[in-house]
Amino acid sequence: MNKKALAILMRARMRPHDPRTKLALSPLTEVNQTLTNSQGHAVQQAAAASKAEREFENVRESMHSAISMNKTEVLDAVLEDFAEGYLSLMHEDRGKLLFVLAKEYDLNRTQVRDLIKQYLGLELPRVSGEEAKSTSLEEEGKLSAFYRIERNLTHVLKPKYEVLFERLNTHPGGLKVLTILRADILSILAEENVASLRALDAYLKEKLSTWLSPAALELHQITWDDPASLLEKIVAYEAVHPICNLIDLKRRLGVGRRCFGYLHRSIPGEPLIFIEVALLMNVAQTIQEVLWVDPPVPECEATCALFYSISSTQPGLAGINLGKFLIKRVITLVKRDMPHISTFATLSPIPGYMQWLLSKLASQTKLADMDIIHSSADGSNSTFSENMLEPEEERALMDSSNCRDLTAGKNGMEVMLNLLMSTNYEWTNSEKFLSVLKAPLMRLCARYLLEEKKRGKALDSVANFHLQNGAMIERLNWMADLSEKGLRQSGGIMVNYVYRVESIEEYAQSYFSTGHIHASCDMRRYVKPMKEHETTIE
Amino acid sequence: MNKKALAILMRARMRPHDPRTKLALSPLTEVNQTLTNSQGHAVQQAAAASKAEREFENVRESMHSAISMNKTEVLDAVLEDFAEGYLSLMHEDRGKLLFVLAKEYDLNRTQVRDLIKQYLGLELPRVSGEEAKSTSLEEEGKLSAFYRIERNLTHVLKPKYEVLFERLNTHPGGLKVLTILRADILSILAEENVASLRALDAYLKEKLSTWLSPAALELHQITWDDPASLLEKIVAYEAVHPICNLIDLKRRLGVGRRCFGYLHRSIPGEPLIFIEVALLMNVAQTIQEVLWVDPPVPECEATCALFYSISSTQPGLAGINLGKFLIKRVITLVKRDMPHISTFATLSPIPGYMQWLLSKLASQTKLADMDIIHSSADGSNSTFSENMLEPEEERALMDSSNCRDLTAGKNGMEVMLNLLMSTNYEWTNSEKFLSVLKAPLMRLCARYLLEEKKRGKALDSVANFHLQNGAMIERLNWMADLSEKGLRQSGGIMVNYVYRVESIEEYAQSYFSTGHIHASCDMRRYVKPMKEHETTIE
Repeated sequence: MNKKALAILMRARMRPHDPRTKLALSPLTEVNQTLTNSQGHAVQQAAAASKAEREFENVRESMHSAISMNKTEVLDAVLEDFAEGYLSLMHEDRGKLLFVLAKEYDLNRTQVRDLIKQYLGLELPRVSGEEAKSTSLEEEGKLSAFYRIERNLTHVLKPKYEVLFERLNTHPGGLKVLTILRADILSILAEENVASLRALDAYLKEKLSTWLSPAALELHQITWDDPASLLEKIVAYEAVHPICNLIDLKRRLGVGRRCFGYLHRSIPGEPLIFIEVALLMNVAQTIQEVLWVDPPVPECEATCALFYSISSTQPGLAGINLGKFLIKRVITLVKRDMPHISTFATLSPIPGYMQWLLSKLASQTKLADMDIIHSSADGSNSTFSENMLEPEEERALMDSSNCRDLTAGKNGMEVMLNLLMSTNYEWTNSEKFLSVLKAPLMRLCARYLLEEKKRGKALDSVANFHLQNGAMIERLNWMADLSEKGLRQSGGIMVNYVYRVESIEEYAQSYFSTGHIHASCDMRRYVKPMKEHETTIE
Repeated sequence: MNKKALAILMRARMRPHDPRTKLALSPLTEVNQTLTNSQGHAVQQAAAASKAEREFENVRESMHSAISMNKTEVLDAVLEDFAEGYLSLMHEDRGKLLFVLAKEYDLNRTQVRDLIKQYLGLELPRVSGEEAKSTSLEEEGKLSAFYRIERNLTHVLKPKYEVLFERLNTHPGGLKVLTILRADILSILAEENVASLRALDAYLKEKLSTWLSPAALELHQITWDDPASLLEKIVAYEAVHPICNLIDLKRRLGVGRRCFGYLHRSIPGEPLIFIEVALLMNVAQTIQEVLWVDPPVPECEATCALFYSISSTQPGLAGINLGKFLIKRVITLVKRDMPHISTFATLSPIPGYMQWLLSKLASQTKLADMDIIHSSADGSNSTFSENMLEPEEERALMDSSNCRDLTAGKNGMEVMLNLLMSTNYEWTNSEKFLSVLKAPLMRLCARYLLEEKKRGKALDSVANFHLQNGAMIERLNWMADLSEKGLRQSGGIMVNYVYRVESIEEYAQSYFSTGHIHASCDMRRYVKPMKEHETTIE
């Protein structure tokens, strides 16, 4: 590790971990900052605007050349020009250029129509299949016309911007530019949903999935011997449990731990996705024992490989599941190198739990209020209202209630809501509140994971990720992540998903086709008693 | 290099170099041989036929599963099954299966028609371009319908067999199977031209070109330290100047020489294409000085990198130009490592010259005979007949003619034809014949290279290859390759193509767009005096 690279690493670890940190590694933010700082005076602003306008036109021209030049011409220089130019553009101009790309380099609809009309003029040959063998020469001739027009139609249906994508993909450094391009498209689409830009995104996403097939990715074990420039990326992109200092990073790459990344030859020194593994005696119940127990168990005594963090580094690859293949390959590798390891599990956050629970509690509390108003009139409860609590949970919560402090509330749900919303997670500092909240929080968490769905798939994004990869839900862990993030997202609860090597494909398949979630008996037991008044959004 | 691998290598070098040798490395031939040998008796034949039938059905079933299984199911085993099964099939059954694939897994034309009709029902939005910025929300909505159907149409236009290709590509070892598949398709198409199989081939070829983009290929310098299993491939596939023994191979990888190959991570240990380079003081004039001068000049004194052989190892990659990128990358690499090398040239065979010349001489001789018959009637020569020889060449040939030996002939062309057709290339053993033939052979060779075209491109396949890569024709070399193959193909003449680094793209471009052939003044001078009665097949 050379001095300069180490210096970068030292600085990188001090940055607060917020979403913008990620962009700090892309040229975009740096350029923007420079430009913003220089816009102190109106004159400078006008000059900058005209300069930006000129720059935009230059990049637009190089984009045009990159698309329209003949393939045997000096393309490398043009692509280089475009890539550099694009990265130097400000956010707004990038957006403008992407609109130009989507609109002006779309497919030619007149050509499509012409071919389509020719196609409809052809006589459909006999249905193939059973009779395939007896196809006569005459029919082969007829088919020949079909093949020709179908082939032409396929080509005409490709937008002109495909050429830019294809060319960038084979150009050194181009794949990285494409991921930045897609990240920019996604950030615009998050704000306004424009059909042409959505089509551009769908096209680019499909291309990227093809180019990033597992066959094109190299599994690399990341160690303390790797260049600082690579380790810096691990620090910057770790999305689950932020790396707080160099000692923390070194521990995650040291004895009893593993870190693996997927590298692509066109994006050197930067894993597209990486996974952190701890070698343990048992499936860990809290993140503290994974991150802070030092020294860990001797590696030869480990029986469990625990995946405690998986982070993707490229916002531009959103929706392309590289994690599935990474997990499968890491399992294969660890099994081969350490046959004594027989359990492959995760210790995972439940990022959507609290958001779901709090909004559910709030709306039910409101409905309950309305019920009180109306109940005298017709004597029945609203069909939409539901007491999310079991009778004994309700009782315990009301017993702990006190109208003068944060536990004030008309019913158990309101008490629970107020407790959970207390500033600085005050409830976690009191043995009493912890014991009252544990039962409903754990039970409702199981319900959230097992039964709350969106379009037939688990509502929780991390659950959906592991379930589609073929994992099962094994166990909930109380007070497993006491970091601010852990408390905010999931009330400190974490979950173990288990990958059973022999069942991965089967589980993935049944989840994919029917949405069925495999879970341990312990997990199922949480939700069983609720069966009669359960509501799922399947 | 382990003992077993060396043993393979020792055997490999003893094989005669014929086209079938190439297949010896594919499982096809071995299995065929085993099966053929076992068919001594009729009973065995019947049993074998029924066994083959069963095997065919098994492979057909695994092919069906590989295409129709859901992508999260256990695909690896199925693909493995199919790959093994296919490779174990006899040639005829492979053909049958490929027909099934082309016919029964074609696209669904009814779906295409349905979508097409929907598409024609849409109202075409305003022409984009200048007005792109002013697109209204309403128009975005209209476009949205276009995007949707165009996307669906693109998917429906993909034949079902695409799935098999895509899946094999991401399956370990699958890319190799795909190249064997295509080689089999090509070998069938060479015998009968079936539209559906041609469509299958076109589709697979397009896929393979994408997957084998230069970005996916790794440049590897092949040395004597490489595994025997890799060197064995070099011996087997060297297509230009067969490697006659281990010493020959070692020399081609040793001091003063280089050998580079393109490897793909999915086809390990087997270069897809490789190039042999000699480091010389001057551009070599004969292959003997390249292959046999030992020791060569010290590398630090070399000023020329001579490409004397380029061979592709995969018949299934025919028509996919990997050589162009290989040459460009090798030039870049050599320039970087050895700045004292400033000339990049080839010493190339002219594989089509003799075939063209002999058939031309034969038909002209025939036409001349007819002219003699008819000339008394109308006094004019046939418009199609042409004396290919200059007056002094004609005189010299007739002077050497003798009706009692191989030089018998009514005119110069017939004498030349008879000389060239003499058994064992007898003309090469006589100073007299050599001196008489040199002038017309060299001049007509220049004409063949510079002016004989097919669809606007050089008729000679090697010339077309280097010209489309951006080379120019520099020099013809008399008696440059005295091997049987060299004499048979080009009368012993070889040609130097030169790659001028600064002009590669420009030359490639003008050849691509207009068919213009760049050549040295020396080359041009050969054909200048012929201008008035030249005939080209442009």
